[in-house]
Amino acid sequence: MKKLNRIIVAVAFMTGGWCSAQSQSNVIEDFKPSSSNQPGKEYPQVNSEGRVRVQISAPEANRVQLDIGAVKYDLKKDTGGVWTGESAPQDEGFHYYQLNIDGASVPDPASLYYYGASRWGSGIEVPAKDQDFYALKNVPHGQIREQLYFSKTNDKMRRCFVYTPPDYDKDMQKRYPVLYLQHGGGEDETGWSAQGKACLIMDNLIAEGKAVPFIIVMDNGSWRMPARDRSVPRGERPAGPWPPKGWADGFMKTLLDDIIPMVDANYRTLADQQHRAMAGLSMGGMQTRIITLANPDVFAYMGMFSGGSISTEDIANAPGFKEKVKLVFISFGSRELENRRSGFGGDPKENTEKLKEAGMNAHFYVSPQTAHEWQTWRRSLYQFAPLLFK
Amino acid sequence: MKKLNRIIVAVAFMTGGWCSAQSQSNVIEDFKPSSSNQPGKEYPQVNSEGRVRVQISAPEANRVQLDIGAVKYDLKKDTGGVWTGESAPQDEGFHYYQLNIDGASVPDPASLYYYGASRWGSGIEVPAKDQDFYALKNVPHGQIREQLYFSKTNDKMRRCFVYTPPDYDKDMQKRYPVLYLQHGGGEDETGWSAQGKACLIMDNLIAEGKAVPFIIVMDNGSWRMPARDRSVPRGERPAGPWPPKGWADGFMKTLLDDIIPMVDANYRTLADQQHRAMAGLSMGGMQTRIITLANPDVFAYMGMFSGGSISTEDIANAPGFKEKVKLVFISFGSRELENRRSGFGGDPKENTEKLKEAGMNAHFYVSPQTAHEWQTWRRSLYQFAPLLFK
Repeated sequence: MKKLNRIIVAVAFMTGGWCSAQSQSNVIEDFKPSSSNQPGKEYPQVNSEGRVRVQISAPEANRVQLDIGAVKYDLKKDTGGVWTGESAPQDEGFHYYQLNIDGASVPDPASLYYYGASRWGSGIEVPAKDQDFYALKNVPHGQIREQLYFSKTNDKMRRCFVYTPPDYDKDMQKRYPVLYLQHGGGEDETGWSAQGKACLIMDNLIAEGKAVPFIIVMDNGSWRMPARDRSVPRGERPAGPWPPKGWADGFMKTLLDDIIPMVDANYRTLADQQHRAMAGLSMGGMQTRIITLANPDVFAYMGMFSGGSISTEDIANAPGFKEKVKLVFISFGSRELENRRSGFGGDPKENTEKLKEAGMNAHFYVSPQTAHEWQTWRRSLYQFAPLLFK
Repeated sequence: MKKLNRIIVAVAFMTGGWCSAQSQSNVIEDFKPSSSNQPGKEYPQVNSEGRVRVQISAPEANRVQLDIGAVKYDLKKDTGGVWTGESAPQDEGFHYYQLNIDGASVPDPASLYYYGASRWGSGIEVPAKDQDFYALKNVPHGQIREQLYFSKTNDKMRRCFVYTPPDYDKDMQKRYPVLYLQHGGGEDETGWSAQGKACLIMDNLIAEGKAVPFIIVMDNGSWRMPARDRSVPRGERPAGPWPPKGWADGFMKTLLDDIIPMVDANYRTLADQQHRAMAGLSMGGMQTRIITLANPDVFAYMGMFSGGSISTEDIANAPGFKEKVKLVFISFGSRELENRRSGFGGDPKENTEKLKEAGMNAHFYVSPQTAHEWQTWRRSLYQFAPLLFK
C-alpha cells in the first residue's frame, strides 16, 4: 500500500498535474493532534503510519479535498456537514499542505502557517523517530532576533533573523563566528527558524557540547530564478550550467555589501574568513555554491543541502578555494538520490569523494527515508553544525 | 450609507448573530492592494472609503462570503469561477476577517495571518491618515527577540517577545527601564509586535526624541476568563465586580515570580519600581489594573487601553498606590465611549478626573473615530510611551 502511494506521488510530480485519491481503507486508528496545530485544535491529526487526517465543517460544500505531497485526497461528509479524511503515509518531518473546498485552495483553519511554495499556508509535523534533536527542552536557549536594516544595494529596508547562542549576553567581551544560512525557493527568512527548527537544533547541540556556539544569520535570498522551460523535452533543452551564470549575483552583492557589514557592525562577531560559514538548502545551496566558489577569502566553511554538489572542475576554476576553504559539506535525502534526475552536475557522492582525493575536507551525508523536504535539511544542519569553527 | 452600515454592524453585535449583506452600489473604484497582503498578491484591496474587497477562485462553490466586522457580505462569481466582493467602509487601521466558502470559515489565502479571536487567521490593514507614526522608516531600529524560558509556576517552557531599543547593543554599561505590555483576550504574545506595530512605534518615537529608550516585554497573558452568561438578560445578571476576584492571579504569579526575574537576569534592566511599567489592552488592561493595584512596590507606571478605569475607591483599597505610582493612563476608542455599555466601573473619564483631583498624575486619551480595535491601541501606546520614565 505504502509503495503504491509513493508511485502515485511520483507520477503526480512527473506529470505536473494532480490526481484524486479516495480515503484509505485499513487505516490504523491511532491518530493524535499534530504538534503544529493551532492552540486547542483537535485536527489535523497524524497516525503511526504518518497518515494525515483533516477535518472541517463545510455544510454546503459539494467536494472537499486534502492536498498534500502533490496528491488530492477526497474527504467524506457526515450528516452534520463536517468533512473528514486522510492522506497516504507521509515521510517523517514537516510538510506543506492545503485544503480544497469546491475548487478554492485555502489554508486549513486549524493548522499553524508557514511561508513556503511562495505563500503563507498550512504545514504539518509528522512525528519522527529522531525528533529529539529538535525538541524544545529545558536547556539554555539562544534568542532569535528580528533585525531590520537599510540595504544600499536594494535602496530599501530589509529584514533578517539572527540567532544568538545561549551565552551571548553573558560575557560582553566574547566574540562569535557566524553562519549565513539560506532557505529554499519559494521560502523566506522565516523558514529556518519555523520549519527548520534551526535554533532548537543549535540550543540542543550546544547544551550537549557537540557544537561550538556561533551566530546564525537567516536572510531572504529570493532573487528571481529563470524558469526552466518544461514544455521542451528534457533531452532537447539547451545545454550549459544550471543555474545560469549571473543568477546569484543579486543576492551575492546584497550579502557581501550590506548583510555581512551590518552583522559585523551590530553583533559581536569574529569578522574574518576563518570564522565565517555559508550554507543553504535547495536554491540556497545553489547560491552557497556560487557565492563561496567566488569568494574563498570571505567564507571558510560551506554546506549545500539538496542543492547540488561541487566538482574538482569547479575547484580548478575557483582560485584559492582549495587552499582556503576548510569544509565542503554536501547532503541529500535518500529518496532524492533514488529518484535523482540529471542537473546536479554529476553524481554528488562521487564528486565529494573526488574532492577528498584532491585533499579537501569534504563530507557527504544522506538523510534516511526522506526526500526534498525539511526533515532532510534539519538533519543536514544537525550533521553540519558540529563540523564548524573547530 | 455609511451610517446605515454602522447600524447593521451594531445590530449584528447585539444579537450575537450575523446578517448577510449584498455587495454595495456606489462604490468608489480606487481600490489598492493592502499592505498586509502576502508578497505579490493583488487582493485583498482597500479603497478610499475603507471598503475591503476580496477575491478568490472557487469554481464549484455555491456561496462565498467575506466575514468582517461581524457582518458577512456575499461575493459574486464571474464566468471563470472567480468570486469578488466588498464590505461596507471599515474604520482606519487593522481588522481581523475571514472568508466563508459553502459554510466553511477559512483564512483568505492572499492575506498575512495574525493571532486574534483565538485563532491564526486573516487580517487587513486599512490605511489611516495618521499611519506615519507606525510606518517602517530608515531610522535606527530596535530588535524583537524571541525569548524562551522555563516557568516554575507553570512547570513548562514559555515564550515571550522582548523589544530592545536601537542603542541597546552599543553601550554595554547602560541599563534600561522596562514596560510589560499585554495583549487582549483571544490574542497572544505576538499581537503587540504584529498587529500593534509596537516596535515601529517605539523606533519612530525614539528617533524623534519623543520617548526615552526602554525595553518592552510582551508575554502571553491568556488565563481562562469566566464567561459572562449572555443568556441572562443584562439587568438580571448577578452584581459584583468584573472581572471576578482571583481571575488575574494566575498571570500575576507568573509575571512576578517568573517573567520579571527572568527579564532582570537576562537583560540590562533598571530592576526597581521606579523603572518598571505595565500596560495592556482590553483583557490586558483589566490584568494591568488588578496587578498594579495589588503591587505598587513593583510598578511605577500603568496604562489601561480599552480595559476599564480606576476609581478613587480602587485607590482607597490599594495601600501605597496613590503615593508610589507616578502615572495612571486610561484610553478608549471614541466609538467605544459612544456605544458604551455598563461594566467599566463607572464613567472612565470621570474616574480619571477624580484621580487628578485626588492628586494623582492621571491621563485620559480618546482615539478619534475608532472602536475596540488595534488602531485605538496603537494610538494609545503612541500617547502613553512619551509619558514613561521621565
